Amino acid sequence: MTELSFTRDPRTADGVIERDFALHGVPGILWLPELPAATAPLLLLGHPGGLEGMRARLRGRAQAAAVSGFASAAIELPGSGERTPIPGVQEARGEVRAALQAGEPVSADTIDRLILPLVEASVPEWRTLIDALQALPEIGGPVGYAGGVISIGVRLARIEPRVVAAGLFAGSFVPRAILAEAREVTIPLHVLLQWDDVGNDRQAALDLFDAFGSTEKSLLANMGGHTGVPASAGEHAGRFFERHLGAV
Amino acid sequence: MTELSFTRDPRTADGVIERDFALHGVPGILWLPELPAATAPLLLLGHPGGLEGMRARLRGRAQAAAVSGFASAAIELPGSGERTPIPGVQEARGEVRAALQAGEPVSADTIDRLILPLVEASVPEWRTLIDALQALPEIGGPVGYAGGVISIGVRLARIEPRVVAAGLFAGSFVPRAILAEAREVTIPLHVLLQWDDVGNDRQAALDLFDAFGSTEKSLLANMGGHTGVPASAGEHAGRFFERHLGAV
Repeated sequence: MTELSFTRDPRTADGVIERDFALHGVPGILWLPELPAATAPLLLLGHPGGLEGMRARLRGRAQAAAVSGFASAAIELPGSGERTPIPGVQEARGEVRAALQAGEPVSADTIDRLILPLVEASVPEWRTLIDALQALPEIGGPVGYAGGVISIGVRLARIEPRVVAAGLFAGSFVPRAILAEAREVTIPLHVLLQWDDVGNDRQAALDLFDAFGSTEKSLLANMGGHTGVPASAGEHAGRFFERHLGAV
Repeated sequence: MTELSFTRDPRTADGVIERDFALHGVPGILWLPELPAATAPLLLLGHPGGLEGMRARLRGRAQAAAVSGFASAAIELPGSGERTPIPGVQEARGEVRAALQAGEPVSADTIDRLILPLVEASVPEWRTLIDALQALPEIGGPVGYAGGVISIGVRLARIEPRVVAAGLFAGSFVPRAILAEAREVTIPLHVLLQWDDVGNDRQAALDLFDAFGSTEKSLLANMGGHTGVPASAGEHAGRFFERHLGAV
């Protein structure tokens, strides 16, 4: 039994219908193609948390996905926005900041305490979101995961059989346990890496890409920093999901 | 004064007109779009040498380029096919083979003696080819370089102002001098890397990508070995050249 309730009137924005919802009290946003097919495949839009601040950027990604006939959705992450902080994560974030400011490497232990509780808490929520959205008449068929937090994407790709393809944004620290899980991921993957992203560990991203067990995996690296992903990369990711979720 | 002579009647093959030529006695192939625009931008198709054996694969790349409205051309490399061997290169190739069979790293000195003479001998020929082909009424506008030998592409990208964009195939050893030249390359670049290409040094390819001075550069890595470049990579490269040479 899922508890999805729409919390605001639908709004139309350039090819999508935007619908705010709450799922067991967690805020989320659904974007349906304005001109839907019978049922639209679903793209889960991964993000770093702070859904309201991400709304405009996520809407842009949903608009591009709607051109391919996909519905898109995102929910707030545990510990972000108005949600209750996850114990220990704030402390780990402080350690990361201190290490970066001191020009020191971030310890593997700190990365574990920053990321693993978030993966544990959020992945069941994304799975419940799939349950709830696939119960809607507008949505059906395969599911894709697109974006960061990459460790959440890795876990979902490994354990959720409805997620058949993932486009992952290499933009966060990766715990050792997630690197080990990556070997068991076998679905088609497309990894996006911003080569000169100062807040990101490039070698860790390359190691993670290498670790994935998938026979179909591709890595696309671009310049331009964390927020400078070029339009061509979006097009490429769009074609990737069209191949794997079914093009319009 | 260039000496280009066509050596065979034109043949039509799936969207292109294939014209064999000799340029100062060096064999080459030109593919013109069957339905040309006023003048077609020119794509130089890099290859590892042995033009006749590469003809079918190069034709496939030329056919894809013709969809974007581009003419494509390739000439035999110095020392390949029927051409006179380059002194020292055969010996260096033997050393590479022996090192790989022994599971030993190939020395930087061997790589220099394998690749640098080829770059020195071939780059002036590719430049003469541009002169000759741009004198034809069917060809004009900017030039791109697409394929391997990557060191030839780097040198052309650095010194030939008519080459405005390069799609480079990371499939050969890279001399230290070429890595140094890469820092002076500033044109838009798209680098294709086969991640599990056993005959290729992945780290050297990543180092080379990192070294390029271009503010617009992208790296696309795929699985599938040296000859297993997926169709999606071809599409992506096609869009790259459409952006930089002018789309149809």
